[in-house]
Amino acid sequence: MKRVSLLAGLGAVLAFSSGHAADRAPNGIALPAGYKDWKVIAPSHRTDNNTLRVIVGNDVAVSAARAGNTNPWPDGSILGKLVWKDTTHSAWPTAQVPGDFVHAEFMVKDAAKYAKTGGWGFARWLGMAQTPYGKDANFVQECFGCHTPVKNNDWVFTHPAKLP
Amino acid sequence: MKRVSLLAGLGAVLAFSSGHAADRAPNGIALPAGYKDWKVIAPSHRTDNNTLRVIVGNDVAVSAARAGNTNPWPDGSILGKLVWKDTTHSAWPTAQVPGDFVHAEFMVKDAAKYAKTGGWGFARWLGMAQTPYGKDANFVQECFGCHTPVKNNDWVFTHPAKLP
Repeated sequence: MKRVSLLAGLGAVLAFSSGHAADRAPNGIALPAGYKDWKVIAPSHRTDNNTLRVIVGNDVAVSAARAGNTNPWPDGSILGKLVWKDTTHSAWPTAQVPGDFVHAEFMVKDAAKYAKTGGWGFARWLGMAQTPYGKDANFVQECFGCHTPVKNNDWVFTHPAKLP
Repeated sequence: MKRVSLLAGLGAVLAFSSGHAADRAPNGIALPAGYKDWKVIAPSHRTDNNTLRVIVGNDVAVSAARAGNTNPWPDGSILGKLVWKDTTHSAWPTAQVPGDFVHAEFMVKDAAKYAKTGGWGFARWLGMAQTPYGKDANFVQECFGCHTPVKNNDWVFTHPAKLP
């Protein structure tokens, strides 16, 4: 009994010292590892909710984006959207810059596995605590519904930004 | 004579097939290799000239940004700013997304080499053709002057965006 307590205590210390691993989304999708190191696909700014975004992609997605192979995106593509509240730059009043971090959200392409939602698995983690979004697996209907206007673009809003 | 012409022709073919390498900026700075693969430091949107931007960094800069070691940024840091004209998303009218590519611009930190301009070497390449900006090396005075409001932030406008 005492040994169990000691091990449990040690486990708690290790978990604390190694940082918190985000829980899985209610549909089972895990927070993609290393997404903060992914390459840029495009920025965007939304005036309806005052957020700045950078859309990034894993290697499969970035290769597809650069090759113009995005309708459909190939299986294995993961698109990540990093979202911040916009704020005004203190030294440049007409510049909108990132304030608080809002969430990171992802679309995971697997045409067979996610056939019911356009071939994409959706997931979102809220805030700096990276709390999974959604009470149960049905949360994806909200994501999927919102993406309906871009059904003809493989359900993806993002058009990869032009680069030399 | 004939051999020289053949070699010149071969050289032209090779140059064409391997893509155009951008000319150096008038102050001698070369377009940083691989900048399109650099990691995100922050997005921004400017309403005075209707542009969307992503600020990226080389490994030295990204490590410094994540460690909060940015005043001053360490020697070897290179910050890149990728700039597009903003346009409206056809399927989401309140979303501003990247249109034409405007330019890529860079700040190269070398406190000794660039002591006269705050320790930073400035350079910019225009458009998809990546034409170096500036008629002569004095173009940096324009860059440096514009950065004067952020003298106390090591002459850098960008505050690294918060990430979990």
